[in-house]
Amino acid sequence: MVILFNMEKKLIAERFKALQNSICLQVEKEDGKGTFQSDIWTRTEGGGGDTKILTNGLVLEKGGVLFSEVYGPVSDKMKSSFDFQNEEFYATGVSIVMHPSNPFVPIIHMNIRYFETGTSWWFGGGIDLTPIYIDEKEAKYFHQKLKDTCDKTDFHFYSKFKDWADNYFFLPHRNETRGIGGIFFDRLTTKNTGKTKEEIFDFVIGIGETFAPVYTQIMNTKKNIPYSEKNKEWQGIRRSRYVEFNLLYDKGTKFGLESDGRVESILMSMPPLAQWPYNYKPAENSLERKTLDLLVKNKAWI
Amino acid sequence: MVILFNMEKKLIAERFKALQNSICLQVEKEDGKGTFQSDIWTRTEGGGGDTKILTNGLVLEKGGVLFSEVYGPVSDKMKSSFDFQNEEFYATGVSIVMHPSNPFVPIIHMNIRYFETGTSWWFGGGIDLTPIYIDEKEAKYFHQKLKDTCDKTDFHFYSKFKDWADNYFFLPHRNETRGIGGIFFDRLTTKNTGKTKEEIFDFVIGIGETFAPVYTQIMNTKKNIPYSEKNKEWQGIRRSRYVEFNLLYDKGTKFGLESDGRVESILMSMPPLAQWPYNYKPAENSLERKTLDLLVKNKAWI
Repeated sequence: MVILFNMEKKLIAERFKALQNSICLQVEKEDGKGTFQSDIWTRTEGGGGDTKILTNGLVLEKGGVLFSEVYGPVSDKMKSSFDFQNEEFYATGVSIVMHPSNPFVPIIHMNIRYFETGTSWWFGGGIDLTPIYIDEKEAKYFHQKLKDTCDKTDFHFYSKFKDWADNYFFLPHRNETRGIGGIFFDRLTTKNTGKTKEEIFDFVIGIGETFAPVYTQIMNTKKNIPYSEKNKEWQGIRRSRYVEFNLLYDKGTKFGLESDGRVESILMSMPPLAQWPYNYKPAENSLERKTLDLLVKNKAWI
Repeated sequence: MVILFNMEKKLIAERFKALQNSICLQVEKEDGKGTFQSDIWTRTEGGGGDTKILTNGLVLEKGGVLFSEVYGPVSDKMKSSFDFQNEEFYATGVSIVMHPSNPFVPIIHMNIRYFETGTSWWFGGGIDLTPIYIDEKEAKYFHQKLKDTCDKTDFHFYSKFKDWADNYFFLPHRNETRGIGGIFFDRLTTKNTGKTKEEIFDFVIGIGETFAPVYTQIMNTKKNIPYSEKNKEWQGIRRSRYVEFNLLYDKGTKFGLESDGRVESILMSMPPLAQWPYNYKPAENSLERKTLDLLVKNKAWI
């Protein structure tokens, strides 16, 4: 029984690792210049990871595709912040953040993860798009692709996980969503989904496999749009909100820092450059204003 | 009794407001170009403030000198995060953050504050310097001036509050102090200091009055040093650590956000521009490396 249990998590980790490699290849191809560089690291308390970073590509200014597999004792901080009921934990996942240089190419984030503590296990994950300038056609395309993937497992998943994303990727102090959302889910088990472990795993892998074709399509459509200094400034401001979300609210960042993960891997999500002009207000009827007005919860993009 | 009590806090608030004006005048004079613009705001639940911001000066890229006086019901968030034992609170203070454009002029922060909840009152505050390039002579000057001010009230204050600052202005995930520290103190009362309320108030005002002459002296010494692109990049990186500290750990930022304060005032502490290159490591024997090596706790600067 223990052997089977250990095999399962190893199989999940191996599948995640393979996904990481496949995503890197597809993104490199679309970027046309940058290549992902590997930083393989180990964690003192147990486990480690492979942080693959691409910088100064043709499309991507900074992008990371991270695999990690960490385990060991549950710290007091992890207990209080994450309600882990056992003394040991195991976690493996793939995390992605892409910061393109062209302000018309959106920022994207994707994460899939598997946890074990004691005899409990669960899957979590999410994918969300943060356009600097919201394009409703692109938003519709993105959400439709996520819905298609969700529908393969359960017709209720998309609307449930879309609402979850709206509430999760939200900055209460700004009263803004981070972007156009996507899907978010956590602690999926057989009990709360009615699915077998294999079915949930297939769903999670399906989300992982949706990432590269969808994002490279978006990169391809937008990467050659000319942009101005004003567009870059607005990108700097939107990126600052991304920083605020990740440092103030993101649970993955919190988990990483509180479990003494590798700082440069956890904070690869930070943009290469961000701007905080005091009290910036976009002009009425500007494209910037239009985007800001669309950063609301519960918008039906499809 | 109630009238006397209310008069006291009003007198404190008025003295803080006068200090804000005096500091702005002194800083403007040294900057030589920028002027502080006032944003007067009110808080729905009670109180408000005057946010004075200088942007694009000759020396300062972005600087804020804020006065606020807020009061009203204690929210559940405030109760759990700040251990407020009563249903109502009153808080007034002055907060300063200065981000100069020249990387050889350090970032500075100062805050003094007064709280009341129920029949309890306390003072808190701090001042700390964040040089992009640490200059040990400047660090000695800065700490000596703080010690001189502390010594006027109590010969034990400097070393006690200097240690407190070392522990407070610290980024555990980076294992770095934010800068060369300074002093930090919180919840000072008659009981824990052996001083009268007037004596503690005088000490706090003394710290406030130390700010402008000390910082304008530092601005004056450093503002004309020529700098390179490399110096600006290092400034962008040090500023990103400043962002990390304020969003991950700073209690003032947390209090502001959790008490539904004005976002643009709370986050005026953010630098105009910050950079997060992946896994930046300064070269051996470089000036950047030397600064990084000095970002440690318990260094005796004087």
